[in-house]
Amino acid sequence: MNAVNAQWRLAARPLGLPKDSDWEYVEEPAAEPADGQFRVAVEYLSLDPAMRGWMNEGRSYVPPVGIGEVMRAFGLGRVTESRHPDFSVGEHVSGVFGVQRYVISDGRNVNRVDTSLAPAPVHLGALGMTGLTAYFGLLDVGRPEPGQTVVVSGAAGAVGSVAGQIARIKGCRAVGIAGGPAKCAWLVEELGFDAAIDYKRGDLRADLRRHAPDGVDVYFDNVGGGTLDEVLRRLARGARVVICGAISQYNAREAPRGPANYMQLLVERASMTGFLVFDYTDRYGEAIAQLAGWRRAGELRSREDVVRGDLEDFPEVFLRLFRGENTGKLILQLDEPS
Amino acid sequence: MNAVNAQWRLAARPLGLPKDSDWEYVEEPAAEPADGQFRVAVEYLSLDPAMRGWMNEGRSYVPPVGIGEVMRAFGLGRVTESRHPDFSVGEHVSGVFGVQRYVISDGRNVNRVDTSLAPAPVHLGALGMTGLTAYFGLLDVGRPEPGQTVVVSGAAGAVGSVAGQIARIKGCRAVGIAGGPAKCAWLVEELGFDAAIDYKRGDLRADLRRHAPDGVDVYFDNVGGGTLDEVLRRLARGARVVICGAISQYNAREAPRGPANYMQLLVERASMTGFLVFDYTDRYGEAIAQLAGWRRAGELRSREDVVRGDLEDFPEVFLRLFRGENTGKLILQLDEPS
Repeated sequence: MNAVNAQWRLAARPLGLPKDSDWEYVEEPAAEPADGQFRVAVEYLSLDPAMRGWMNEGRSYVPPVGIGEVMRAFGLGRVTESRHPDFSVGEHVSGVFGVQRYVISDGRNVNRVDTSLAPAPVHLGALGMTGLTAYFGLLDVGRPEPGQTVVVSGAAGAVGSVAGQIARIKGCRAVGIAGGPAKCAWLVEELGFDAAIDYKRGDLRADLRRHAPDGVDVYFDNVGGGTLDEVLRRLARGARVVICGAISQYNAREAPRGPANYMQLLVERASMTGFLVFDYTDRYGEAIAQLAGWRRAGELRSREDVVRGDLEDFPEVFLRLFRGENTGKLILQLDEPS
Repeated sequence: MNAVNAQWRLAARPLGLPKDSDWEYVEEPAAEPADGQFRVAVEYLSLDPAMRGWMNEGRSYVPPVGIGEVMRAFGLGRVTESRHPDFSVGEHVSGVFGVQRYVISDGRNVNRVDTSLAPAPVHLGALGMTGLTAYFGLLDVGRPEPGQTVVVSGAAGAVGSVAGQIARIKGCRAVGIAGGPAKCAWLVEELGFDAAIDYKRGDLRADLRRHAPDGVDVYFDNVGGGTLDEVLRRLARGARVVICGAISQYNAREAPRGPANYMQLLVERASMTGFLVFDYTDRYGEAIAQLAGWRRAGELRSREDVVRGDLEDFPEVFLRLFRGENTGKLILQLDEPS
């Protein structure tokens, strides 16, 4: 095999939005698997807002990507060579494969993917980490009850669109916050949200008052910033704020903005709780079965925003996340190497 | 009876620290109790940081004090006239009596005070709302476990000094944050805190690292602002942040400062929860019995910072809270009217 492994490595820690000089494109011969290893040809790259956080220095829930290291990313691909007893050539697998064409694995933290259950990209979206994040964040941390109002920010994004639909399935009033009329129409007309608020209209306060007249019982936050502050103003008694992300702050060049209205937690005896999907590995099976069941029954729709391209396109496609250009799960599907 | 009722009424909503023109001093004939009512001569006024919040306009957990209304305050006094079957002349009672010499009551939300159990001021402190706030906030919201590290800000204040002692009683490592060496010495030497940090030294980050080497499991916050942000940086996995108050922000002339490091809640899978003591009325009896027991056994010390004076001194004494001049519970003991 003379396969060439193309990679994007982190060249510098970005200030603000990542720019070309923060990345280094490298091509080198693909490594061969040793005994107990196999090689995966990556076919789909998962593009997630959290990746921006992994590029920063400092203490977080995982170590930062080191300068000169291959950028960390979830991916899905096919086993092309195997010297591992449990993984056979041709099988689809997913895992943290990095932004590269080929990866060598010993099978740890790699999941076999059943593409008869759903097309491959769905396994990076509603039936992958994205869906699991929405599932555990909303149900375990948010604990919504039927009839309660659940507000989701970043609602047209990968996690938000699933979280809002689970809220609707559980008998809640699901209100999404998203950017632009097209996304908002999609939330209400296609995904069955009870209401959608276009934050770009610039009247979030009044819109929240209108669409959450009895207050917000659960707020599933993907964006932080001014949106979080406005929702805090409308919390219902005993509300739960679920901190899933803060995409509005990930590229901030100055200190991130904290929620100035956090004392509403006291006024309304409410809580704000952070979580990480990785703490729920023991229950992934249960959750995926549930998500797949809802999907099969037509109750849960997944949308993958699949961009076809070459690995070289990664830096540019990645930025779509922060420009709000994706609807649903952003995925880079790699063309066959030419 | 020709008793004169002196009162402080709210004249204007303060910007920043309350100033003279925000208050109006009024003297008028004391009202007589009707059938089913009694009259209380207020002897002790409880001075609490929360009172500053009650002076602001806007939605909160209680309506604001109206312009022209008697300033709201807890107090303790003696029944001087009674046409109520359950309250006799001479009994000590506590309740929300307002900043005034005399109050007419129908007995609702008024508690009989047993001054044989402890001196009167203690019933406004460790055995009053103050102690109850510390008790429920720490134990019910913070849920500390033996061996865990509990950090309390405003630790030399009324609530903080009790919260830290309860943490110590429960087998936790109690670390107090307070202003100045005298308060810090008092916390460690008199109250048995394991450590005290003088935030005025200006090295809170390093001091927290030293005194909470394994991270902060429970943070009982009375101050907000930069202190909250620094403690968020040191949270332990699964930490609970209890939002009791934010005295550093109560007199802010601009928008209050939100905790910029709130995403540490995600990194450490931690929660930040507000509470109000008034939600626990059903359990006041249990808590007071427990607090009184600890006090009797010498495990819980209470300190009342009792200022003797006239009602006219109220505005000036009240400001001591915000200058950090009190240690323990600040109380204005009213001299007999001259």
